Parts: sequence; structure tokens; C-alpha cells
Amino acid sequence: MIYFRSDYSQGAHPKVMDALAKTNMEHHDGYGLDDHCFNAAEMVKSLIGKPDASVHMMVGGTPCNVTVIAAALRPYEGVIAPRSGHAYFHETGAVEGTGHRVITVDGINGKLNPSMIDKAFDEYEDEHTVVPKMVYISQPTEIGSIYSKEEITAIKNKCDERGLYLYIDGARLGAALTSKYNNLSIQELAGLCDAFYIGGTKNGALFGEALVINNPAIDDHFRWMIKRQNGMLAKGRLIGVQFEALLEGGEESLYYELARKSNELADKLKTGLEELGVEFYSESQTNQIFPMFAAPVVEKLEEEFFFYRWAPEENGKIPVRFVVGWGTTAEDVDALLDAVKKF
Amino acid sequence: MIYFRSDYSQGAHPKVMDALAKTNMEHHDGYGLDDHCFNAAEMVKSLIGKPDASVHMMVGGTPCNVTVIAAALRPYEGVIAPRSGHAYFHETGAVEGTGHRVITVDGINGKLNPSMIDKAFDEYEDEHTVVPKMVYISQPTEIGSIYSKEEITAIKNKCDERGLYLYIDGARLGAALTSKYNNLSIQELAGLCDAFYIGGTKNGALFGEALVINNPAIDDHFRWMIKRQNGMLAKGRLIGVQFEALLEGGEESLYYELARKSNELADKLKTGLEELGVEFYSESQTNQIFPMFAAPVVEKLEEEFFFYRWAPEENGKIPVRFVVGWGTTAEDVDALLDAVKKF
Amino acid sequence: MIYFRSDYSQGAHPKVMDALAKTNMEHHDGYGLDDHCFNAAEMVKSLIGKPDASVHMMVGGTPCNVTVIAAALRPYEGVIAPRSGHAYFHETGAVEGTGHRVITVDGINGKLNPSMIDKAFDEYEDEHTVVPKMVYISQPTEIGSIYSKEEITAIKNKCDERGLYLYIDGARLGAALTSKYNNLSIQELAGLCDAFYIGGTKNGALFGEALVINNPAIDDHFRWMIKRQNGMLAKGRLIGVQFEALLEGGEESLYYELARKSNELADKLKTGLEELGVEFYSESQTNQIFPMFAAPVVEKLEEEFFFYRWAPEENGKIPVRFVVGWGTTAEDVDALLDAVKKF
Amino acid sequence: MIYFRSDYSQGAHPKVMDALAKTNMEHHDGYGLDDHCFNAAEMVKSLIGKPDASVHMMVGGTPCNVTVIAAALRPYEGVIAPRSGHAYFHETGAVEGTGHRVITVDGINGKLNPSMIDKAFDEYEDEHTVVPKMVYISQPTEIGSIYSKEEITAIKNKCDERGLYLYIDGARLGAALTSKYNNLSIQELAGLCDAFYIGGTKNGALFGEALVINNPAIDDHFRWMIKRQNGMLAKGRLIGVQFEALLEGGEESLYYELARKSNELADKLKTGLEELGVEFYSESQTNQIFPMFAAPVVEKLEEEFFFYRWAPEENGKIPVRFVVGWGTTAEDVDALLDAVKKF
Repeated sequence: MIYFRSDYSQGAHPKVMDALAKTNMEHHDGYGLDDHCFNAAEMVKSLIGKPDASVHMMVGGTPCNVTVIAAALRPYEGVIAPRSGHAYFHETGAVEGTGHRVITVDGINGKLNPSMIDKAFDEYEDEHTVVPKMVYISQPTEIGSIYSKEEITAIKNKCDERGLYLYIDGARLGAALTSKYNNLSIQELAGLCDAFYIGGTKNGALFGEALVINNPAIDDHFRWMIKRQNGMLAKGRLIGVQFEALLEGGEESLYYELARKSNELADKLKTGLEELGVEFYSESQTNQIFPMFAAPVVEKLEEEFFFYRWAPEENGKIPVRFVVGWGTTAEDVDALLDAVKKF
Repeated sequence: MIYFRSDYSQGAHPKVMDALAKTNMEHHDGYGLDDHCFNAAEMVKSLIGKPDASVHMMVGGTPCNVTVIAAALRPYEGVIAPRSGHAYFHETGAVEGTGHRVITVDGINGKLNPSMIDKAFDEYEDEHTVVPKMVYISQPTEIGSIYSKEEITAIKNKCDERGLYLYIDGARLGAALTSKYNNLSIQELAGLCDAFYIGGTKNGALFGEALVINNPAIDDHFRWMIKRQNGMLAKGRLIGVQFEALLEGGEESLYYELARKSNELADKLKTGLEELGVEFYSESQTNQIFPMFAAPVVEKLEEEFFFYRWAPEENGKIPVRFVVGWGTTAEDVDALLDAVKKF
Repeated sequence: MIYFRSDYSQGAHPKVMDALAKTNMEHHDGYGLDDHCFNAAEMVKSLIGKPDASVHMMVGGTPCNVTVIAAALRPYEGVIAPRSGHAYFHETGAVEGTGHRVITVDGINGKLNPSMIDKAFDEYEDEHTVVPKMVYISQPTEIGSIYSKEEITAIKNKCDERGLYLYIDGARLGAALTSKYNNLSIQELAGLCDAFYIGGTKNGALFGEALVINNPAIDDHFRWMIKRQNGMLAKGRLIGVQFEALLEGGEESLYYELARKSNELADKLKTGLEELGVEFYSESQTNQIFPMFAAPVVEKLEEEFFFYRWAPEENGKIPVRFVVGWGTTAEDVDALLDAVKKF
Repeated sequence: MIYFRSDYSQGAHPKVMDALAKTNMEHHDGYGLDDHCFNAAEMVKSLIGKPDASVHMMVGGTPCNVTVIAAALRPYEGVIAPRSGHAYFHETGAVEGTGHRVITVDGINGKLNPSMIDKAFDEYEDEHTVVPKMVYISQPTEIGSIYSKEEITAIKNKCDERGLYLYIDGARLGAALTSKYNNLSIQELAGLCDAFYIGGTKNGALFGEALVINNPAIDDHFRWMIKRQNGMLAKGRLIGVQFEALLEGGEESLYYELARKSNELADKLKTGLEELGVEFYSESQTNQIFPMFAAPVVEKLEEEFFFYRWAPEENGKIPVRFVVGWGTTAEDVDALLDAVKKF
């Protein structure tokens, strides 16, 4: 069985595992108050060019999203998000579990734009209605698309106009940064939002995300919030060690390299499928692609390959998702293309 | 200034005030454990023909909605509602404040139908997604429309198929029950849902709603839930006394009489406006109507009448809301029609 | 049956009922945005000598406590309270329902002191522990004792030293203000806390409390908080009208008069019982007293009088609670003393 | 610097690291739905002799505690715990963050007993008070003491009598199971509670706890609860792999071996200190000991050793905590004894 199921189906990149093994017998204080976490935080700040940012080593993406939202909002405030956004769609109501509404808007190709933010305010009146206070977006989105520099700048300007925080979910940030379609550097992105995270889980780590908070209003007692929201890891050093391994070298680091390779293989797969006349469900610019096949083809492919059926059959075609991870090989892609060729 | 602002701009109907005055010096145990509350509950059960129902005298509509939802749902469960529904639109996130998502669907003329419930389930996958467990609707809706017997039956059947509770917000239930378009008796309505309330605040009471719970799973420790959700009134007897006055006589009671009169005057107003060629924003069947006027007309009317501008100007017309309350007089309606006639 | 059960077993004082009847047919905008509420708020500010305070007309005591606490605290913060305090003991976890811990300390005669506040901080360490941020006390306490001016000043100083808000639950504030043991005026009390309320329910109103917020940090978007926490009354004017009637005349008002009379009758009852050799469970200074009787005496008294057994039998005596309300008469007290005399 | 700071200051035991390295390149489905997690769960069920138990691989102890409590309780219910219990004392109000009260009782030597449970019910009256529904204890406790078989049986019987769930926090369960003072096997413990967890983080794992739920009422939709409470790990297999390595061999496994060795070294340290005349703050039976030293001794020791000051100085002595972890060596213990000997 060849996996195109997700970019977190394997463990960590061998270099990350080596770093964990090498530091395993060191003694450190717990909960992220150790030299590896401190050093990784410095590496992040250096990479993004923001010496004053606050960086927290987090266990996963949901803890990042939920903790930032719960820390930033007053009880009657809500966060605007595309209905397909992870914080709304795939977190079992964890945000609402902290008492806050996710105010959904219908995105376009997974993306939000300034006029959608305005539209969310149509629902805001006075003390009888939830106050929109934050915008949540993902870069790249859940369906592989990315925001251009101009698009995020426009969203940021709208947020400033409306008095909103902007938070960017970077679960697959590496894939956005290294996409050939991307024109937004991590430094620019960091300068356009109040908080974002650099996702490790889906790009070579066992687990872990580096959360960056630019806005002190959100960062106040943030470690208390991490603990209260269930996200504090006893051996926090594990996340620090992994990010040291991933980010060493900045834009020449393993983090960029793995993401770039994933994008390239995904592009090869996409191009290959296009040449075979396959149609696509959405336009992806990163390491996830969403081709559509007739049901018998899907069933046949499922005998050899492990992947998600993404959406219900429509007009005789089933959209599926192929994800290229850091461990996916050119041979895997060739095998998949060969299999499709047979139909 | 003549009020068409809301159906809760005056105090209580004089007969209700009389009942409060007459019982004022009685001593009773607190928190709704008194003979007036017990008696009013029996009157409700008799009216709806459900001797086994549980009836709670509640302070207001939001406490009804929030407490029922918080009592019925497990933490990861959500409630499906039209986006225009009160529990989503006008309660400042009080439902989310109890940790539950309101799963919104776009209603038609303010109403939900079975296919919208199915659609809400498109977002449900597995442990990563909120479990829909309840449907919330209002009878009549926020924009004055009512569900027919057939429509609510279809919704109830879909709820049964999907394993959902059905809860009906009856803030203006009297207006629905006495609408000339209505074909659903209160006994039938009570038999088609797990819980609903008979709204007093908007139909002659100072405040208070009679909440009916048919499903014991929702009623478990419900008084604990009322207290925990901030809705327990020390002198609970006040609500009991008012509902005694309102419901005496069942379907011949003051409650029905006041609602019928409001509907009739609203109909007179609507017909009068139609004869003047006025267009409407939505089709109302109860005591709220939503005509549209050019901005200068609205401004002129606002000099003499107090009402809401309902929605932003569209195609040169502003939708407004006129509400006829139990205290509105035929003279008030004539004055408004006369004023419109001048344009 | 003669009631010594509570000070909220009757309706409103006749003058309050008259005010409600007189204003009943007026039209007003809803939710507390009406002239009666505005006027009552001005009367409160004038009485307490704080023109800049923010005053909210609230439905009940639990909504005051819960909304203030939820508005004031960040998610990881808690409120220090005596374990016998109402917000901990008698609100079914409503405070925890908003996500906040009530950090309990053992009071003395129902009261808290600065060293107990220090003790609460023994539990505070760092990001693994709840941050104490507010002190909650009641004036008078649940068991009828009152804080002196010196005692509250000492608590306030400790709060300032520790960076804590001070909130005072005034459910029976009138009884404290008019106690012959009291040396703290309402103006002084208002100057020593961040928020407090003047309780109406237990001193002549049908319901309603006038909440005073001195600290703008707590008052931010407070009306949004009231709605979100289930406490917004549609016909808010009802509370305004009642406080107009209660507070007219300031320290010569009905509010002071009713409380003073209750205290005097309670004192008469207490003195009478003392003369009969009755022992007391706690030392009360207001309108609630807690004598102890042998079980057969209690049972006999219960045939004619309605009151609470307060605590389990100890050393052959059962502590009971007699509460004197605004409607209690000298005859009621005499009857009770006569009954006790028989043993 | 020699660490006696905690039993989670190092990474994983080398055998655990090897298992992670060996399985690193395998592809698996995410979120704990993989063969390693399934296998580890079977190993747990086999070890405890409960084939019908439900076992969840959890990231950490706080996620176990919070998720079990939030899954088990209705909104108005609370959990009884010793005030020194982790769920109250060291989780920044995470339990209250889910809306539930921790009802504290004063333990004795960190432990709770049946009469304390009865005492907690003194605070329970009716709909105005929180309903106790669960008892939370730790085995061993936060201060190293353990419950005997008889003690836990008595607690369980009291829970049954009172209608309470019993939940046991096993963050250091290995240390209890292998204590020379212990008479309660893991099979017996599993049979005496509704849920408990086998702590990995503090006994040789990088992170992870194996949560066992015996009561289906708590297990309903538990994976939804894990996600909603922020505790779902994308690469759940990591926890499964570690528990496979730890539990291979059942009571002869690495898990038991590491814990036994920690206890033995702690005992050696304790005995050595006793021989030097050192006094102790509490009586420990596991791998944490709490000696007391004069301030200058503590300061001197801090130059070479890293440990916690546990409580404020009392009678000229400061209680400190020495924890022996799986990686602590006999040489470390000797060095510490030598250092103390110098005073």
C-alpha cells in the first residue's frame, strides 16, 4: 500500500529523529523552559526578522488555534473564518468549547477576502450580537490554495480598518512558502498578522508547531492559557529540539527543503494527471491535489494506494485527495501515474 | 410618538397587572416552588393535552433557548438553526458561551426544511467534526412567517430519522396559533417536538415564558440547569401568576385573544399598505410586517412613529419593521396608514 | 402559617407595585434603554456620590455575580471567596460555568480578612496555577454579619497590594446600611470597591438589583456580557421603575426605611429570644437570626411558622434561620416569641 | 548539575527511543487509529485483565484528567478532589475551564478518605448547589504517598453508595505499583474505578499516558471529547509505539522495571538521609521524597543539585523535593548523600 493519505503518516525526518536521539539523555527543566526551546525560539525570531516576537513551542495545530483565539477574545467576541477553515470544520467545536463563536463566511477556493469580512459585519448590530474581533485564515488553505502577498495585505488592511486581529494557521506553512506560485516571504507574512504558526507536524517533525505572537495583547499570560487549554507538554524540550533541526539554516533549512520537495513531487503528479486528461476538483498550489475519477477507478486505485475520498460523487466523478509528504518518493508518484494510465 | 417598535414596549395587560397586585401580599416559597407556578403548569399541561410534560416558568426567551440547549447536548454536539434564528442571531453568542456550536443553515423566508437538515450533515464526518443533535426553529420565525402542520411534521420526521431533538422557540407563539394562515394547533405542536415555550413577554406579560419539555432526557435536573445558567428568579411566583391570568380559559383565554387582536390589526395594516401599492420585504403571516419605503419616506415616518429599520437599503428602498402589540390600537394603525397615504 | 422563611416570600412593597401600575401603559424601548432605567441610574450615582460610575439594572443577584466575574477575569483567573459565599455556595456552579474558579477560603463568622487573601496566594505559583484576580464578599454576609468600615478598608488595601479587584455582593445591602452596628456608609462602600450591587429583590422589589461598576476595565462592553450571560430583560424598564420608587429620597428613601424596619424587628426577636435563654448559632447584625432549639421545639414551631433548618443538629440543638422581611409585622414577631415561650 | 528536579527531565528510556526510531518510516493512519495504538491498547487490556475496557492513547496527564471529567459530568456536576490534587492544584483551572467545579476537601498526607466524601456532600442541598458526581484521586499522590487496597476499596464503596464515579490519576502509577509498601495490583485497581491512566511521561516515555475507561457512560464519543478538549495528536502512533515498548512483558516489563528501580534508589536516598538525622516533611512511599533542611544547607545543595523548594520555610527548615527518575543513577544518590553529610 502506497500512502497519499496525508503528510503526517510517517514519523519524523531522520535528521529530526537524530536530534531527538542525540539530546535524549540530557536533563532539562520541563514545560518548554529549556535551552532547546529558547534556542529554537531565537531561530524563529531570526528567520522572521522579528526580535520582539513571542514564540511558543506548541504540541499541535488545534492547540495553537484554540489557545490563540481563547487568549485574544473577550467572552462576547467571535472569530471570522471561512466555513472550510480547520478551526471551524475539523476541530469538533473546540473553539466554541472555549465560549467563542466561529463566524463563518463562504470562501472562494478556500480563501477569504475583504468583502467577506465586511459581510460578516452585516450580522453585527449591538449588544444583542457577537462582536467580530479576529480573522482566521490558513496559509495554505485546507484545499491547497495560497494567498498572494496582495491578498493578505488587503485582508490585513481590512482587519485594521475593522479593528480585528489577523491570525494565520500555518499547519502547512512550508508548502506555501516554497510553492512556485508564492510571492509572500515568511518575513512579510509575519509582518502582516498578529499571530501565526510554523507547522512542524506536517513537514518533518514527530509533532510540534512554532507559534509566533506579534501582538502583546494576545501574548499576555499566554503560558497560563496553554496550560488551561490542555496544551502544555511536560517535556517541552522535544519541540525545541525538533525545530532546531528543522530550521537550522533559515531559508536554506531542512524545513524549506522538505516542503519544496513535497511541492515539486505534487506538481509532477498534478502535471502527469493533467496530461492523462484527469480533471480537478479545486486548483491547488501546494502539496495536496484534488483530482476526480469515476467510482470504478477510485475503487481500483484504493487497492494499491491509501488516500481520502474528499467529497461526494458529483456528475459521475468522485473528488479524491492525494497528499505528498516529505517521505513520498518519485517512485510513489510514478506508481500512481502508472496506475491511472491504465484507465 | 406612536410605537410600532416591538410587542414588548408596554408593561403587562391590565388583567395581568391586576393578578399581580391581587396576589402581591401572599407569602410563597421562592424559585418557582409555589402554588401559582404549580397551577400555571397544570393549566399549560391541560391546554396542550400532555399530562406528563414538564413545565418550567422561565424569565425570558434567551434563558429558555440557552438552558434547553445546554441541558440537552453533550459537549461535542451542536444545534442546527436558520442563520436568522434568534438563538444564533440575537443572543450575543450565549449558546456558544455554554460550549456549543450553532450550526447555521440558510433558511427560506426565515424557515428551515428537511433538506437543510440533511445539508448540515454534509459537514459531519467523524470525531473531528461537531455532531448535530438538535434542530432549533421559531414559530413564528423572526420575520413573521409560520410553519404549517405539514412543514413541522416533515421536520420532525427528519429529526427522528437523524436522531435529533426538535426544539421550538415560541417567543411569539400566540401570534402563530391565532394567525388566519395557521393550521397547527398547540396540541399538535406539542406532540411534534421535544421542547418548546409559550412566550409571555411579547403577548401581555411583564415577562416570563412557559417552557414545556416533553423529553425526559432534556428535563433531567433541569432546575439545576436553570440556576447554573443564570435564569432562576427568586420570586418565581410572579411568572406563575401571570400565566394563570393569561391562560385562564385555554383557547378562549386572554393569551389567544391578545394575539388574535394583534394579528388582525397587523393584517389591517398590511392590507392597507398593499392597497397603497407598498411593496414588502418578506411575507409575514403574523403581527410583524416588513414593508419597504424610499429613504425620505422612512425619515418622515420616523418623525411620528417609532419602528426599526430592518435591513440596509436595496434598490432604493429600505425595509422596515412594524410590530403590532397587544396595546396597539386601531387608531394607531389608521394614523400610520394616513401618514403613508401622504406620499 | 407565619413566614420567617426568607425576605423574598412576598411580592413588592405597595409603593413599588403602585409605580409599576402607574407606568404600565407607557411605551418604552426595551432592554434597559429607557428613561426609568436612566433616571434610576442617576439616582444611584447621586446616592453613592459617584457621577462617573456605571449603573446597570439587573434581574437578580446571580446574574450580577456571574456577569461581573465573567466580565472582569481573563480565562486563567479566579475569584477568592469565603466558602460560605453565595457565588460559591448557592449558585450551582454558575461561576465555574463561565470557566472561572472560585478559590475558597474558610471565613470567620462568614467574613473574609486580609490574611485569608494572603493564604489564597499560597496556592499560586506560576503558569500551572490559577491567578487570583478578584475578591468576592457579601455585605452583609450569608449569615447576617457585617463588615465594619475598618475591615473593608483593610480588605481593599490588601486587594490593592495584591492587584485584585474587590466586588461586593449587596443582595441585602439595605440591611447592612441600616444596621445599628454599621459604621460604613454607602458612599464609603462605593469608594472601596470596583463593583457592588444594591439588592432590590430582598428589600421591597418584585425583583431587580442595581449594579454599580466603578472600574472601567470591568464595564467594557458590559451590556454584551449581560446578554451573553442570559441576564438581559426585554422590559428592562420594570427594574428602573422599581428603583425609582425604592430610592426616591436617598438615605430617607423607602429602601432605607424598609431595611431599617426589618432590622429593628429582627433585633426585637433576637433580644426576646435571648431573654428566653435561647442560644444562637452565629452572631447576626442584620435581619436574619440563627437561634438553636431542641428538635421537638423545632418540630412544634414548624406547625405554625415557616422557616429553614439551617444546619444539622449539633449537641442536641438544631440551628434554624428566622428572616424578617419588609412585610413581617410586630405581631408576627410577638407570635413567634409567644410560641417559644411555651417551652 | 545533578537533577533531582523531576522524573521527566530526560527524554525517553533508550529502548523506547529505539522503538520510535525503528518504526519511524512506517506509514500509518493518523489520530491513534493505527496498529501500534491498537496493539498497545490490547496489551493494556491484557495487563489489567479487562478485555472490555476502552483504552485511549493520550498526550499527557492534564488532557486525561480534563477530558475524563468533561466527558463524565453534566454541566451542574462537580468532582471531589483533595485540595492538593493535580487536577485542582496544578492545572491552571483547566477543569473549571470546561465548566465544572472541583469540590476540594482537605486530604490527610495527600490522601482522601470516605468521610471526606461525606463531608463534601454537606455542601450539597438542592438545585442551588453543585451536584458531586465524581471522586478524583491520584495513585500515588502528589506527595508520594499511596493508597492501600483497603483504602481504595473503602473509597470505591463510598462512591457506589453516593452514586459517584471514581477516577484515578496514575501519572506515576508505576511508582505505586512497585512500591514495597503497595498491596494493590493493577488488576485490582482497574476493578475498583471507572477510569484511570497508566502514566508514561514520568516513567520512561517521551510523553503519553494510556487511559483506561471501564464505564461506558464515560466512554461515549470519547474520541470526540479528546479532539474537542485539544488533546488529539496527529501522529497518535507515537504513543502506541512507546507503550508497546514499555509494557512488553506485562508485570515483567520495562515499565515495572524502571519504576521499581526509581523506588529503590529513592528508598536508598531516604534511608541514607534518615541515618544522617534529616527530618521529613511528609511520609513518602514512592520515588519522591520531601526532606527538610536549614536554609543555608538548601542554598549550598543548590549549587550542585537541581531540585524544588516545596513549601515555605517553617520552624527554620525548608521542605524540598527530591525526585528519582528512571535515569537517576546510584552515583547521583551517593553524591547527594555525600553532600548532605558535609553539614
